[in-house]
Amino acid sequence: MTDKDYAEEPQAGDRIRITDRHGRTFEGILMPHHAFSGSGIVVVKMDSGYNIGVRPAPDSEIEILERGNAAPSSQTGDSDIVTDGNLPIISIVSTGGTIASFVDYKTGAVHPAMTADDFVRAVPELSARFNVRTRVPFSILSEDMTPARWIELAEIVAEELNAGASGVIIPHGTDTMGYTAAALSFLLPELPGPVILVGSQRSSDRPSSDATMNLLAAVRLTRTDLAEVVIAMHGTISDRIVAVHRGTKARKMHTSRRDAFKSINSPVIAEVEGKEVKFLSEYRKRANTPARVQGGLEENVRLIYSYPGLTADTFSKMVEGARGVVIAGTGLGHVSSSLIGELGKLRENGVPVVMTSQCINGTVNMNVYSTGRNIMKAGVIPAGDMLPETALVKLMWVLSQTSDMSEAREMMLTPVAGELSGRRVE
Amino acid sequence: MTDKDYAEEPQAGDRIRITDRHGRTFEGILMPHHAFSGSGIVVVKMDSGYNIGVRPAPDSEIEILERGNAAPSSQTGDSDIVTDGNLPIISIVSTGGTIASFVDYKTGAVHPAMTADDFVRAVPELSARFNVRTRVPFSILSEDMTPARWIELAEIVAEELNAGASGVIIPHGTDTMGYTAAALSFLLPELPGPVILVGSQRSSDRPSSDATMNLLAAVRLTRTDLAEVVIAMHGTISDRIVAVHRGTKARKMHTSRRDAFKSINSPVIAEVEGKEVKFLSEYRKRANTPARVQGGLEENVRLIYSYPGLTADTFSKMVEGARGVVIAGTGLGHVSSSLIGELGKLRENGVPVVMTSQCINGTVNMNVYSTGRNIMKAGVIPAGDMLPETALVKLMWVLSQTSDMSEAREMMLTPVAGELSGRRVE
Repeated sequence: MTDKDYAEEPQAGDRIRITDRHGRTFEGILMPHHAFSGSGIVVVKMDSGYNIGVRPAPDSEIEILERGNAAPSSQTGDSDIVTDGNLPIISIVSTGGTIASFVDYKTGAVHPAMTADDFVRAVPELSARFNVRTRVPFSILSEDMTPARWIELAEIVAEELNAGASGVIIPHGTDTMGYTAAALSFLLPELPGPVILVGSQRSSDRPSSDATMNLLAAVRLTRTDLAEVVIAMHGTISDRIVAVHRGTKARKMHTSRRDAFKSINSPVIAEVEGKEVKFLSEYRKRANTPARVQGGLEENVRLIYSYPGLTADTFSKMVEGARGVVIAGTGLGHVSSSLIGELGKLRENGVPVVMTSQCINGTVNMNVYSTGRNIMKAGVIPAGDMLPETALVKLMWVLSQTSDMSEAREMMLTPVAGELSGRRVE
Repeated sequence: MTDKDYAEEPQAGDRIRITDRHGRTFEGILMPHHAFSGSGIVVVKMDSGYNIGVRPAPDSEIEILERGNAAPSSQTGDSDIVTDGNLPIISIVSTGGTIASFVDYKTGAVHPAMTADDFVRAVPELSARFNVRTRVPFSILSEDMTPARWIELAEIVAEELNAGASGVIIPHGTDTMGYTAAALSFLLPELPGPVILVGSQRSSDRPSSDATMNLLAAVRLTRTDLAEVVIAMHGTISDRIVAVHRGTKARKMHTSRRDAFKSINSPVIAEVEGKEVKFLSEYRKRANTPARVQGGLEENVRLIYSYPGLTADTFSKMVEGARGVVIAGTGLGHVSSSLIGELGKLRENGVPVVMTSQCINGTVNMNVYSTGRNIMKAGVIPAGDMLPETALVKLMWVLSQTSDMSEAREMMLTPVAGELSGRRVE
């Protein structure tokens, strides 16, 4: 094989045309081979942004339509692509996760973080319409997210918005994306524009990756009057709709499906279908207020799941030394009556206890049964229809601002960022 | 008012006819007034078993069609109604909960437990067709359920089936009904007939109570060839269908809806619509083997929810002294990499750790990402698509039978009662 022959082999990043065994022809960008692609499968990124796996007809060749312009993108820190000072600015604050596993088209290696360059390549229409700024404060798998990183992220988001970004897109691992969205919702109660967390359940180099479509939807949202922290992820298992969930109301409800995220006890805010953004419920609109980080996060708050067999002794160990406790109780917000004495002790020690439900859907109501009424008497704060994860993050935020029990209670009961729907029950 | 006048006032338990403000006429049994009924509302139990709340027309009187034959039922222990030795026997093992809050028609007081008498009154067609035996081992709100009570319950169920009951119906509070169903599934791996847990999200004296319809469906199931532990609860928010869920696969997914229970990662076994039982997926059929309690339950197993901010130090406190640990990790079964050292220590101390997902839907798979692979290297046992609650109960059951780490692992990975669907991933 001569150098020339080699040069004429199709390479990742080239625009190609290929025919499959059923005679169907596909045109798009050739993606690098990936362990998940399967042997004999060629992955093509279609103009829709959707990757498909094609098994070529035995006698067919891959036709190169256009050589890829794929310089290896070695940047891993902050980067800008400024094409025209008059275009709106989108800020990408990348944190890692599957969606940030972008593949270098030349080397086939997986980037741990996303640069402006990667991003523009994933969503080619961007460079003509936006100036893209990228910041990469850290690049982690999202199970390693911490409250300290949430504060760092909130500060960067505020900076970017105040520096003129029309919206901030945060690529993020899906494992803890719901928690991060809730944290940013409380830390940034006022926003001049949207903050959109976006993830991917399948990495970008796999057939059926959801990364590009979710990113495209996030870009579309920066052009609307939305000014909330939201999550944009596939709304169905098909590639038709991206659902936009309120940051305090979204939960990952499936380990692997692309439509894993669901709005719980709340309608979705919007759906993005192609270029259209359809708003479906109330949302906060852009205002001329600058973004500002409010409060911090008390890290020493525990989330305890209650279950038959959880004894007072074990519970007492689990909450030892905590500054605050969130319980995911059973049903309407119950724990074994044998634990109620421990709840009383926590109150005496100035440790607020918040009750949520492990049912996830519905609202806690501790006025219906005797156990609930006794839990209320022990001073436990009902979390209404708040998700356990959102209540955890909110209690961290509240306790960074007050250590007064009745003030903490009042803050927990007062809606801040759409985390409580429905009527106040206490 | 004379004694005679008083006697002619309609009383709870009487068969009445009433006209509402829209001119509609309702006929049925007058139910006692309840705090939830609302002022001016009369609750009538229709012949369908459904309770409706009627607001009478201002000028209308309640017409008494037949005096109630409602002797106060003061029994709270075991009781039998034997009408014909040739009829099949249904055994009711009542444990308490909303469904057992049957109202005494004469006094209006709420029974803490259900007697055979109450049961026959709730489902009148019973007495002609079945001999009903009732046992009330305890009467609790289900948040107070314990592993020791599960064993007691399993033993009674086995006794009843071996004494000739064609099926056992267990009225149970909904809070922990899923946990109990899983526990009975493991403790009773062989059954000659069905064990049906049945609950109610609205107490029997309220309009829209689901108690009677769920009970009726349970009765119907005793006439089939089913021989598994199942949960029978409303399948939709209407009163049309009762869904039958496998005991190891059912989870309470709403705090208050009547269709709160869902089969997770598994189809429902059957639907009961009117008198018809429609089987929709594979199930275990009656066999001539006697029921037998296998194993016990090690109570000292912990269920730990992982979240950002959970430090190694706190985790270590939470699991201190445990014989086994189940984690509800994020996504495909992850925890912060800072906890992996603690997982290794647990293995060194002979404490099995099982990984489930807080996503609830889907299956854990720790071979996809580096964190998962490191968790696997630390000896953690993947729970496949088992619910966190089912994994907790199964680990209690396994550790009552072995303290050998590799034997415990093998038992956790081997399906016993339909708790694992799909392919084994380890």
